[in-house]
Amino acid sequence: MMKICFSFMNAPSPTHSGLSSAAADNLLDEVERVMRRLVTHGEPSGEDMLSDSARAAVGHLAAGGQRVRARLALGAGIALGLLPQDSIALAATSELLHNASLVHDDLQDRENVRRRNPTVWVNYGDDVAICTGDLLLSAAYGALAAVSDRRLLPDLIALVHARTALVVRGQCAEFSAKGQQVTDMAMYEKIAVGKSGALLSLPLELAFAAAGKKEWMGGARRAAEAFGIGYQIMDDMEDVESDAAGDHGPRAVNALLVLRAAGHGTNAEAMAREIGLLHLRTAIALADRLPNEAGAFLRGMALALCQQL
Amino acid sequence: MMKICFSFMNAPSPTHSGLSSAAADNLLDEVERVMRRLVTHGEPSGEDMLSDSARAAVGHLAAGGQRVRARLALGAGIALGLLPQDSIALAATSELLHNASLVHDDLQDRENVRRRNPTVWVNYGDDVAICTGDLLLSAAYGALAAVSDRRLLPDLIALVHARTALVVRGQCAEFSAKGQQVTDMAMYEKIAVGKSGALLSLPLELAFAAAGKKEWMGGARRAAEAFGIGYQIMDDMEDVESDAAGDHGPRAVNALLVLRAAGHGTNAEAMAREIGLLHLRTAIALADRLPNEAGAFLRGMALALCQQL
Repeated sequence: MMKICFSFMNAPSPTHSGLSSAAADNLLDEVERVMRRLVTHGEPSGEDMLSDSARAAVGHLAAGGQRVRARLALGAGIALGLLPQDSIALAATSELLHNASLVHDDLQDRENVRRRNPTVWVNYGDDVAICTGDLLLSAAYGALAAVSDRRLLPDLIALVHARTALVVRGQCAEFSAKGQQVTDMAMYEKIAVGKSGALLSLPLELAFAAAGKKEWMGGARRAAEAFGIGYQIMDDMEDVESDAAGDHGPRAVNALLVLRAAGHGTNAEAMAREIGLLHLRTAIALADRLPNEAGAFLRGMALALCQQL
Repeated sequence: MMKICFSFMNAPSPTHSGLSSAAADNLLDEVERVMRRLVTHGEPSGEDMLSDSARAAVGHLAAGGQRVRARLALGAGIALGLLPQDSIALAATSELLHNASLVHDDLQDRENVRRRNPTVWVNYGDDVAICTGDLLLSAAYGALAAVSDRRLLPDLIALVHARTALVVRGQCAEFSAKGQQVTDMAMYEKIAVGKSGALLSLPLELAFAAAGKKEWMGGARRAAEAFGIGYQIMDDMEDVESDAAGDHGPRAVNALLVLRAAGHGTNAEAMAREIGLLHLRTAIALADRLPNEAGAFLRGMALALCQQL
């Protein structure tokens, strides 16, 4: 479960990346429209007429979220000179995939609240929640159909599948860890990469792939994974009490609990902070190296998190 | 839940569709390899090293099934002159999507057995079953990356998403019917189209789209939907006792129970048989009209079912 409780809305990002301009807001609005259109595909118009899974998907998306993955894709896409249509498609793909994982994760973790609203399984039951996640996942691929240069599609499809498989594997690794305390930070980081790194790197990787700059995909991925681990550690520090109490089930893999279990006792918190900072600084350094300031939004988020540590 | 308890292995299909030849068996073997490769993407080699969801997906696929949707795609693809690589990709997409729906449906319906094996949720638990269905669904789109003519991909992606959304909607409609007895055959048929028609028409529609014969997609869809409804009615007649007893939960929508609830009492069985035959004969007539005998395998299956009625 990846909970964004920190605000990245005001993460510093150069105007040139377009993210702070009205034009970028228009793009984000268009991403919202594309996502809504995809999850209501084939449905009669009119909110009352929607099937349960479409209504659940629309409601889940309308509840908000910071659209971090959409912003990453839009920021990188604009910086790399993609057509707006393409940046929008990649942003919608990344955001829909993330939201598919949230709907299924919330069900698996029996989370009751998401974005201050009851989660889909609470509102609609388990069966509809499974269908809603499936609909969002399918819609994520559906968004790719709008990419202007069709020659790119095989690589983009393969990339989305690769990252989806990684997320699924990360989720499974967390289940396998269920009941046994993880005591190894290397294992922790592997799980964190699957849980949040994979879907943070996807928008950047897609933008580089679409811009014909595949040589930068590895760098973008490493930057996003470092951010994902750093973010996850910070998130864990906020959640440590509820995780220790088993509020999210016995499976919660929490950095602080890992360090405590490894025998670091009273030092665990300071150590977690240092490790988190290290990953965030790595993310900043790696994002800085990306061409055209394509990593500006990632860098801004990492910087904002460092300042809160 | 769509259960294939009838054998279509020997459904008559002209040699020209290639399905009875050794060459076609080779294509089907290649479809199996492609599916396995996609669900184990990024995994270490070696069966023991697979993550739970990949192992569950491999095990689910290895348990068999008649590969009706793969055969429909291969038969139509060969008949329409597609490259083997393309027929294989479309077959893998259709079959993976179907298997994704089976894994999630089995969990939702709490089915214990599938293809004489314990279902994924029974073997691995609910959480892994959700992940396994997600992996299979993502892999279905991943298979499209191998299509040789990339210009076709937007249409193919859009079609797969449209049919997936229809399946999800059909599944939801069945949940909504839960507890209330469906008494209307029009509603029954709508649910049946979502439950089985959508994924039976997909392989044919994909083959026509890839062959540049989009004008035949509507005809292929109507033929497959008629077959799907006819098949579902036959399947319901086999399941009527367990459905009436609530073995598949209170939600089972069964044609015979629909007709009984509509007041047809002792006539219900004869009436269900007639309605089923009508749909199957419609499927045969519509399949006959498709060009290049692209509907030969569908026609053969419909004929085999008629002979069992």
